Amino acid sequence: MDRSPLREEIERRNRTLVTAFDRRDERSMAELFTADAQLFPPGREPVSGTERIAAFWKQVFGTGVDEFALETIEVEDCGETAIEVGRYTLRTDDEILDEGTSLVVWKRDDGEWKLHRDIWNSNRSP
Amino acid sequence: MDRSPLREEIERRNRTLVTAFDRRDERSMAELFTADAQLFPPGREPVSGTERIAAFWKQVFGTGVDEFALETIEVEDCGETAIEVGRYTLRTDDEILDEGTSLVVWKRDDGEWKLHRDIWNSNRSP
Repeated sequence: MDRSPLREEIERRNRTLVTAFDRRDERSMAELFTADAQLFPPGREPVSGTERIAAFWKQVFGTGVDEFALETIEVEDCGETAIEVGRYTLRTDDEILDEGTSLVVWKRDDGEWKLHRDIWNSNRSP
Repeated sequence: MDRSPLREEIERRNRTLVTAFDRRDERSMAELFTADAQLFPPGREPVSGTERIAAFWKQVFGTGVDEFALETIEVEDCGETAIEVGRYTLRTDDEILDEGTSLVVWKRDDGEWKLHRDIWNSNRSP
């Protein structure tokens, strides 16, 4: 498995995202995205920019998810851009609500890696 | 709007994909993907490799889609890799069945651009 410094950095950023989720801190989550980031959640129109991304996460806090987990499957290094294939899991305290695949385009932004394009979908049949 | 040669080439490859769809030619569709490509359709596990990708498209032919359309929204040039944000529409002869967002990682493979990672989800609420 690729254990590159870039992959480790992206895993670190994902842990920061998950920790902010655990604190229900949508501001800190949104700050991990670039200023012109776009989120593509299933079942709705794209979500653009820091304010709307914060509002999106705040709304997720109200959907009964107790635990949000991310696993990095692969990272491609493209210099100032990186592409990550990952897996997410959403759980309540006693069951898995959803699990699926994500594809994230990361950008190095003033020395920090930030999420720039973020799309995911469920692996479970509807 | 960015009218780079790369973007035009990717739009051309998408037209080839759509034309093969119109002919119900899953083999030609699968050959537009790299040998180790992965498709991430909503509602199922990832689909890997040429044979399974051909079988996936063949199964889509049976779902009542008369028209499959792709629109390129943006392309990022990363040398031998390109990242495309797009929009897809699935229609029957008289209604839109689904529309949504796609994120495709393209690879230059022996001089030809091929789809390497392909994920999408619907913009419509379930």
